Amino acid sequence: LSMLHFQLKKTMSKKIIMGVDPGTTITGYGLLSCEGKQMKLLTYGVIRLGKLKDVTHAQKLKKIYDRISGLVAEYKPDEFAIEAPFMGQNIQSMFKLGRAQGVAIAAALANDIPVAEYAPKKIKMAVAGNGSASKEQVTRMLETLLKFEYDEDVLDASDGLAVAVCHFFQISSAIPTTKGKGWDSFLANNPDKIIKR
Amino acid sequence: LSMLHFQLKKTMSKKIIMGVDPGTTITGYGLLSCEGKQMKLLTYGVIRLGKLKDVTHAQKLKKIYDRISGLVAEYKPDEFAIEAPFMGQNIQSMFKLGRAQGVAIAAALANDIPVAEYAPKKIKMAVAGNGSASKEQVTRMLETLLKFEYDEDVLDASDGLAVAVCHFFQISSAIPTTKGKGWDSFLANNPDKIIKR
Repeated sequence: LSMLHFQLKKTMSKKIIMGVDPGTTITGYGLLSCEGKQMKLLTYGVIRLGKLKDVTHAQKLKKIYDRISGLVAEYKPDEFAIEAPFMGQNIQSMFKLGRAQGVAIAAALANDIPVAEYAPKKIKMAVAGNGSASKEQVTRMLETLLKFEYDEDVLDASDGLAVAVCHFFQISSAIPTTKGKGWDSFLANNPDKIIKR
Repeated sequence: LSMLHFQLKKTMSKKIIMGVDPGTTITGYGLLSCEGKQMKLLTYGVIRLGKLKDVTHAQKLKKIYDRISGLVAEYKPDEFAIEAPFMGQNIQSMFKLGRAQGVAIAAALANDIPVAEYAPKKIKMAVAGNGSASKEQVTRMLETLLKFEYDEDVLDASDGLAVAVCHFFQISSAIPTTKGKGWDSFLANNPDKIIKR
């Protein structure tokens, strides 16, 4: 019984979630500290690769891997969530994007951190309550949910942060509660989190 | 002067090369021990993922990462070479293949091993002297060059082994020599390595 109790307690105790939106020009990331229904922003930022001159694809992959590994080592996330991209038309680009995502995922796998994946629409729905929400709407909602103001220089980090928030809603709604589950109940229980438009 | 001498000696001393042909259904690999113009087969094999049932894409990526990392830990390669795929028509498949390649590359990056990439035609040209060589021809040439007989069960490993051999020719031809460089001079200097057809 005490084992079970311990496990339940562990499930509900503090968790660090890392969200990443890996790309070949910009990789955005965000880190949250979550406890029960509460989440706190730890950090967010971008890894810029597009403007680097004379940098090979392999060097970009190394930079993504090194930076993501560094963040994993520093913040020790318990869970890792990435944004599955919308499939573009250029096969070569999608292949390179796949590699960029592969090295980012590997930085989690190397540390035995479970990796969850969410489609762009699902992330927008989870964060802004609308699968077709604009980047602006998602950004505003993130600011409200996480009680911070975006540094305009790292606005590209918002997709990485959004997927972390999406994952938080996904796993926190799985915690048994009498208050209901998911986004609808979250809004119902947190009327102050609704942005009036 | 002694520093320079040491560095030159190091360049020409024994090197372990790992070749990998990462794929979402089969990943082939080969490991060579190289010294000067000599190469020795250490091991080769395949990581099969295609027939696994109820295995998610993420679990496949984990299996590739774990196995490649395990081989890197066991053989400690100095250099890593992968086959750049021929671009297919299916964007979703190429994206997934990119991810598989990304995690394999990350297993090398995690250990600061330089990664080289070769196109399929270049590999066939290097190993079999013909950019359009068949898999059969490449396999036979590998058997002759590395003095072994293929275990038919792991024939799919041949692309991984071939890219390792291709990389060996690439780096060994860069070592200063009065005997000439590259494939042509290799054949000229090693007439016993030519298969008569």
